[in-house]
Amino acid sequence: MTTTPSPRTASRADGAPSALRESAARLDADDALAHLRDRFLLPEGVVHLDGNSLGPLPAAVPPALTDAVTRQWGTDLIGSWNTNGWWEAPLRVGDAVGALIGAAPGQTVAGDSTSVQLYTALSAAAALRPDRPLLVTDPGHFPTDRYLADAVAGQRGLQVRRVPPHDLAAFLGAEGHRVAVVSYSPVDFRTGELYDMEALTRAAHDAGALVLWDLCHAAGALPLRVDDLGVDLAVGCGYKFLSGGPGAPAYLYAARRHHAALETPLTGWNGHADPFGLSRDYTPAPGISRARIGTPPVLSLLALEAALTAFDGVDLTRVRAKSLSLTSFFLRCADELLTPLGFTPVTPADPDRRASQVALSHPHAHGLVRALAERGVLADMRAPDLLRFGVNALYTSHRDVLTAAAHLRDIAREGAYDPTPPAAGTVT
Amino acid sequence: MTTTPSPRTASRADGAPSALRESAARLDADDALAHLRDRFLLPEGVVHLDGNSLGPLPAAVPPALTDAVTRQWGTDLIGSWNTNGWWEAPLRVGDAVGALIGAAPGQTVAGDSTSVQLYTALSAAAALRPDRPLLVTDPGHFPTDRYLADAVAGQRGLQVRRVPPHDLAAFLGAEGHRVAVVSYSPVDFRTGELYDMEALTRAAHDAGALVLWDLCHAAGALPLRVDDLGVDLAVGCGYKFLSGGPGAPAYLYAARRHHAALETPLTGWNGHADPFGLSRDYTPAPGISRARIGTPPVLSLLALEAALTAFDGVDLTRVRAKSLSLTSFFLRCADELLTPLGFTPVTPADPDRRASQVALSHPHAHGLVRALAERGVLADMRAPDLLRFGVNALYTSHRDVLTAAAHLRDIAREGAYDPTPPAAGTVT
Repeated sequence: MTTTPSPRTASRADGAPSALRESAARLDADDALAHLRDRFLLPEGVVHLDGNSLGPLPAAVPPALTDAVTRQWGTDLIGSWNTNGWWEAPLRVGDAVGALIGAAPGQTVAGDSTSVQLYTALSAAAALRPDRPLLVTDPGHFPTDRYLADAVAGQRGLQVRRVPPHDLAAFLGAEGHRVAVVSYSPVDFRTGELYDMEALTRAAHDAGALVLWDLCHAAGALPLRVDDLGVDLAVGCGYKFLSGGPGAPAYLYAARRHHAALETPLTGWNGHADPFGLSRDYTPAPGISRARIGTPPVLSLLALEAALTAFDGVDLTRVRAKSLSLTSFFLRCADELLTPLGFTPVTPADPDRRASQVALSHPHAHGLVRALAERGVLADMRAPDLLRFGVNALYTSHRDVLTAAAHLRDIAREGAYDPTPPAAGTVT
Repeated sequence: MTTTPSPRTASRADGAPSALRESAARLDADDALAHLRDRFLLPEGVVHLDGNSLGPLPAAVPPALTDAVTRQWGTDLIGSWNTNGWWEAPLRVGDAVGALIGAAPGQTVAGDSTSVQLYTALSAAAALRPDRPLLVTDPGHFPTDRYLADAVAGQRGLQVRRVPPHDLAAFLGAEGHRVAVVSYSPVDFRTGELYDMEALTRAAHDAGALVLWDLCHAAGALPLRVDDLGVDLAVGCGYKFLSGGPGAPAYLYAARRHHAALETPLTGWNGHADPFGLSRDYTPAPGISRARIGTPPVLSLLALEAALTAFDGVDLTRVRAKSLSLTSFFLRCADELLTPLGFTPVTPADPDRRASQVALSHPHAHGLVRALAERGVLADMRAPDLLRFGVNALYTSHRDVLTAAAHLRDIAREGAYDPTPPAAGTVT
């Protein structure tokens, strides 16, 4: 989230060195995914590099929502639960997300927030490994992941161990037999470092532990293979690379082999085996339906479903290749234009260790991101000193990247920003 | 939910006895709230008496959602969290609901599903009364309330006691000192019976217990006074009498006196005292903000906010008076037209004990409700044998009521319905 209304003043890279301009032009000319940008309604004059809490508006969303509101709700009314597929939407949209994370149908459900899905997944994991007292999470994990790990551990008598992914193997060597679940993200949300999901998953399994992946910063940006890797549980949001809109419903994946024993803490009626039978006791539905909770926010869910059509026919290996091309080019621009001005790239130069964002540290990150926004370049920042630039291969161009770097250089060189840190409580 | 697409074939009461027709016309002519019907986009030829999982489309919703999607999301992009008030929306919409349930501002938050809010409220109540082992709920409570009472009790070592509201005083006389929380709805969702919230709240408090009200079937239909009655906690959905749309976000009310000690199980980052500080540990926000969990489904939340404007300037005591006039008239129609055909009203005749619906029992409820829908009369059913007709004083007329009763008489008299019970798993 940024603190500034988005303006529309500039998105040109005219002031950049000609070698970079020519590289951007050549890379964009060779971009086989360039046409996908038309699937998004990007405002004129905006460079959208905010991979945080909102992607741009996919072109498929406005007509889908108009239909959902005026025809489905307004005209078909309550019959829409059946005739327009509202009741099945969490499973249908779940499968659409599943296709992007390497999950065969019937293992992913969409609805609720990432926090609720995380709580469900952490609780279910603890219940699947009742004799193991440790819950391993990343000290650098996104706050809500850490808070909910603490909450679930406290409620279930587990202990939390904060182990950086790079130290997991050593930790498991000593304590692995006591670990119930390893709860990680494949991406460090600040630095953009990409961890080795396959190796970490195997290490957890070798220790007899389950693995729970938070895919918020990965789904839609690179190929994921939750089924192939034998992942146990995964969650993720709908609003970053999936562009599902503000607060788009999240999703939960549970591998089919766990369904029969999957105990969810929030036994809402939508997850009942016979939801309309009004039976006295809770009997979980077979399959992933048992991870449903209450009635989902259908309008937001249908917006997400429409947004996901931006991936129709798109090969995620190509998305990954373009994403790496974009971040590599960003790092080159940063090297030439920004490091001389006090910016330090913290995203790994090794492409195998780089997700779909570039983070630069600078002591005035907040003011710089605001100044960028005033010029139409939307990035975001993470306290205290990180500027984050998310690239989305579906709509970001190399020219966008150069534009952002050139504006940032100009702003820093001219001191054209407010160095005051944000007030406490400001939405950043 | 109904099993049939809504059709538009008929909504006329021509075949009804003239005395009833004249009564309906007179009552409608005297209806000071009749103009409020224009705040809803009711399709031609439909009588909407389904107070279940979806109200009709409020006229304010389509333009509000178009603005939210095209301007706020599409153009203002991520800055909308600040400039368009997305971040504050759960509190702002919470206060708008609060105004309808008698809650002063700053005690109600909107977001998540009713099931999630119930889980939070039940867990918080248990934590506020840690030395008391009993959780009292209504054996006739809506399924999700029962399932979640069982879940929370199991997770926190409480025992559930299922006590009908009419038996609460006697139960508390014997066991009151052991009761942590009484979790009730003021309305029996099947029969439409209205319980005495004031007396039940006082009884719980006299025993030192907390009271948690599920207001799903009451909010927006009658004046509620949660602050005045000293209610501790309340939850409710946004999609019945509030007409907030399919799966509209639910709400949670916690009396201000409990805020400082309110422990929520789902410690998502939106409820943190400094959500953007990314601090290591969870510190709950002051006030009702601590009941926020994850990022809310903003589009669905803004649809609910727009829907609530249908109550602007509306006096809920007048809504209640008209609702009683409608249900009284429905019972009169039922008495004259339907009881001779095997229908039995199960809604109390005493207006003080009647909420805003009329329920009739009939062994072929499912087929009859389907046949009504085919004629444009939308009701719903509850297994095995109840037809439910919800009236909403904001848009229901006495003529609507008579139309429904007359069609139902015709269908029953002609046997023009399928007596086969619904298949298991059918969305009813």
